[in-house]
Amino acid sequence: MEFINGVQQKEDITVSQLLTGDYIGRTVRMRGAVHNVRDMGEVVFVILRKSEGLVQCVYEDHPDQEADRGAGTAAVPLQISDLKNLKEESAVEVTGRVAAEARAPYGYELRLCGIEVLSEPDEILPLAINKFKMHTSLEAKLAMRPISLRNVRERAKFKIQEGIVRGFRDFLMSQGFTEVHTPKIVSRGAEGGSNVFKLDYFNKKAEMGQSPQFYKQTMVGVYDRVFEVAPVFRAEKHNTTRHLNEYVSLDFEMGYIDGFEEIMAMETGFLQYTMELLAKDYRKELEMLEVKLPDVSRIPAVRFDRAKELVAEKYNRKIRNPFDLEPEEELLIGRYFEEEYGSDFVFVTHYPSKKRPFYAMDDPEDARFTLSFDLLFRGLEVTTGGQRIHNYQEILKKMEKRGMDPADIESYLMIFKYGMPPHGGLGIGLERLTMRLLGEQNVRETSLFPRDVTRLEP
Amino acid sequence: MEFINGVQQKEDITVSQLLTGDYIGRTVRMRGAVHNVRDMGEVVFVILRKSEGLVQCVYEDHPDQEADRGAGTAAVPLQISDLKNLKEESAVEVTGRVAAEARAPYGYELRLCGIEVLSEPDEILPLAINKFKMHTSLEAKLAMRPISLRNVRERAKFKIQEGIVRGFRDFLMSQGFTEVHTPKIVSRGAEGGSNVFKLDYFNKKAEMGQSPQFYKQTMVGVYDRVFEVAPVFRAEKHNTTRHLNEYVSLDFEMGYIDGFEEIMAMETGFLQYTMELLAKDYRKELEMLEVKLPDVSRIPAVRFDRAKELVAEKYNRKIRNPFDLEPEEELLIGRYFEEEYGSDFVFVTHYPSKKRPFYAMDDPEDARFTLSFDLLFRGLEVTTGGQRIHNYQEILKKMEKRGMDPADIESYLMIFKYGMPPHGGLGIGLERLTMRLLGEQNVRETSLFPRDVTRLEP
Repeated sequence: MEFINGVQQKEDITVSQLLTGDYIGRTVRMRGAVHNVRDMGEVVFVILRKSEGLVQCVYEDHPDQEADRGAGTAAVPLQISDLKNLKEESAVEVTGRVAAEARAPYGYELRLCGIEVLSEPDEILPLAINKFKMHTSLEAKLAMRPISLRNVRERAKFKIQEGIVRGFRDFLMSQGFTEVHTPKIVSRGAEGGSNVFKLDYFNKKAEMGQSPQFYKQTMVGVYDRVFEVAPVFRAEKHNTTRHLNEYVSLDFEMGYIDGFEEIMAMETGFLQYTMELLAKDYRKELEMLEVKLPDVSRIPAVRFDRAKELVAEKYNRKIRNPFDLEPEEELLIGRYFEEEYGSDFVFVTHYPSKKRPFYAMDDPEDARFTLSFDLLFRGLEVTTGGQRIHNYQEILKKMEKRGMDPADIESYLMIFKYGMPPHGGLGIGLERLTMRLLGEQNVRETSLFPRDVTRLEP
Repeated sequence: MEFINGVQQKEDITVSQLLTGDYIGRTVRMRGAVHNVRDMGEVVFVILRKSEGLVQCVYEDHPDQEADRGAGTAAVPLQISDLKNLKEESAVEVTGRVAAEARAPYGYELRLCGIEVLSEPDEILPLAINKFKMHTSLEAKLAMRPISLRNVRERAKFKIQEGIVRGFRDFLMSQGFTEVHTPKIVSRGAEGGSNVFKLDYFNKKAEMGQSPQFYKQTMVGVYDRVFEVAPVFRAEKHNTTRHLNEYVSLDFEMGYIDGFEEIMAMETGFLQYTMELLAKDYRKELEMLEVKLPDVSRIPAVRFDRAKELVAEKYNRKIRNPFDLEPEEELLIGRYFEEEYGSDFVFVTHYPSKKRPFYAMDDPEDARFTLSFDLLFRGLEVTTGGQRIHNYQEILKKMEKRGMDPADIESYLMIFKYGMPPHGGLGIGLERLTMRLLGEQNVRETSLFPRDVTRLEP
């Protein structure tokens, strides 16, 4: 009988291994994609693309150089023509001797003595993905997304996005949160309204979840503090630079809070932890994209009504609707706090009750407003959160006032009927947070395969 | 201006803090749900339920005991009637002196001197969630899922599930994998067929993703090795103990492989890592559910056709269809390898080509079979994986043979046209893996809010 014992060390080495410096003078194997072939006549450079970065390989067609290359293990010695005929985007295994070379990426190069082609493309790339900057329109990049993501700057964005998600999870775990997985096909969305994708579920009406709201509140009754990282779906017809119809939502919900300030504090803690994690583990990507991490040591918090006044005064605007925030006002609030306090972030608190869902807790001091907040990052809303109603009679009363039928969401209301602690939470739009962090102008830049009103592919 | 500075230490303590033993003799605060009130006349026990476990609080109505309690901080001293009237599932903050008490959970109890009710339920629970075992039918538990999950054994299952997901991610990160987030609304599913949920996407036909298959392969061209933890959707009409219509899929895909054995080795590595993590960080839950972790030091691998022969011989069965595996055969294969090799797991390899999707790589030595596998865990398929075709002409040929139109999935085929390394991967059903690990008989037991043919709520 054959047995599988677990992961075996492979013979080829990684970039991390190369960077230890332990391999100088030794002949190694590396695998990767042929990112670029630069044919200089008697010298050919092959740039290998690996997940971790680019590796320079070189072959010089001169007898004196033979000693400098590693001893070939191949039966047939490497010929320069093998390299000149190499197709970009081939998958290869190269063999070569490691040498220090200040002009190569990371300071090392491989002096080639062998190359084995593992697979070859059928056609030549229609897009110069091996240029550092592609200088291609967003439309063209998105149409060719499966390929354009191979560009090192493109993929660096999503590596940083990985770091944000890691930061979210690791920080919340350290704070006693439990990770949950809740269903995305639901009988009724949390926000209601017309912005839902409907589907037929075995002849029953169903919707795609706009938010894990009901479920994460439910799970506070079980684990006190929970989080989820999962897709949410919004059938909004807005075709703007800020909207996606499917996005990744970073959600958490926490019980036993004394006030909604604790939720903002937890988010600030997440941002502090994550910026440190990015600076430590994603430095290469940050440098490549010239990202300066924001200072999150403290984040100003301002009331919704006060924020409107501040920008009206400073930027000479009229307050048209005291209960709504226009996108331009959000931008100005962001600008105001950047100019006055040097902060890229600002919490805007106490949103009007009318603009918040029924489960939001009204401010006991003025029920026109809620104990809720948005977090703006350079003038863009990246988070909505707040304290929720936890009393059964209170939530029934609020539903009645809004003409809602409790029977429609009975299994949600059950949690209040049988007891819930004071609690609150938030949802962060991952692509928006990444977009602002990277200084991108369109949220599609920070979604691997964006879904918008016109885009269902790739 | 007000500023939010990050997470502040709260005054109440956690179970972990209690367990350090540093608090013996000190008066502390704790917050939690009233899990149980045991009124013994002059002594009342209040069991506090916190995320980490249960905490025994006690109040003895005797003057001699006053010194033993912490000094009350409340303006009004605690009366025994306050505790006798306490409603279960109230959220409370208790104040009390920590004492060692061998009969209490964890060996500590709180001698109460104060209690503050933070919130109260509206009605009494219809379900005895505070019994160690609920002795309730699955149907009843699911109907009341938002509440029944508060039972300590119920929630322990999903804590272990959290550990499996952590193990998956942490292990793959250590192996150079990158985490990705791919869209769940797609123009066309990876497996095709009728088992898809359809939805209207702004007047275009769309489907809910059955698998991230196309996207994870695409991302191998970008990051070499990728993984994703996300929901998948299958409109299968099977209403069995093994099927869910929405489940969490643990997917990975890796490039530059020498054979599909490497994928099985990586999965074995994941299982080895995860069992160690569970033994370390989830011991309490494992003990509560009396789970014995399986030995995964080595996992046998057997060919599909050979496995059929082995069980036919040993259990005196007839092979009815040499190209299909019946559920009963899966169970017997599981039993065979348990009996013969003491293994709870077995890889069944070389599935018939007809039974695998078009992108599966056929065995070059016998094209009726594929370089693919299932992992059976105690006779239940918990994983499907294998090597994929990476050559553009080869995949076109296989599609043609199956009567498929390349134009339908052009943006997927693009990756082969422009070059892909040899690669493969797998998908693990999280709920099934958890189900088998915990010895549950129905996969609904290990889904927080299961979706099946008749169940869309809670």
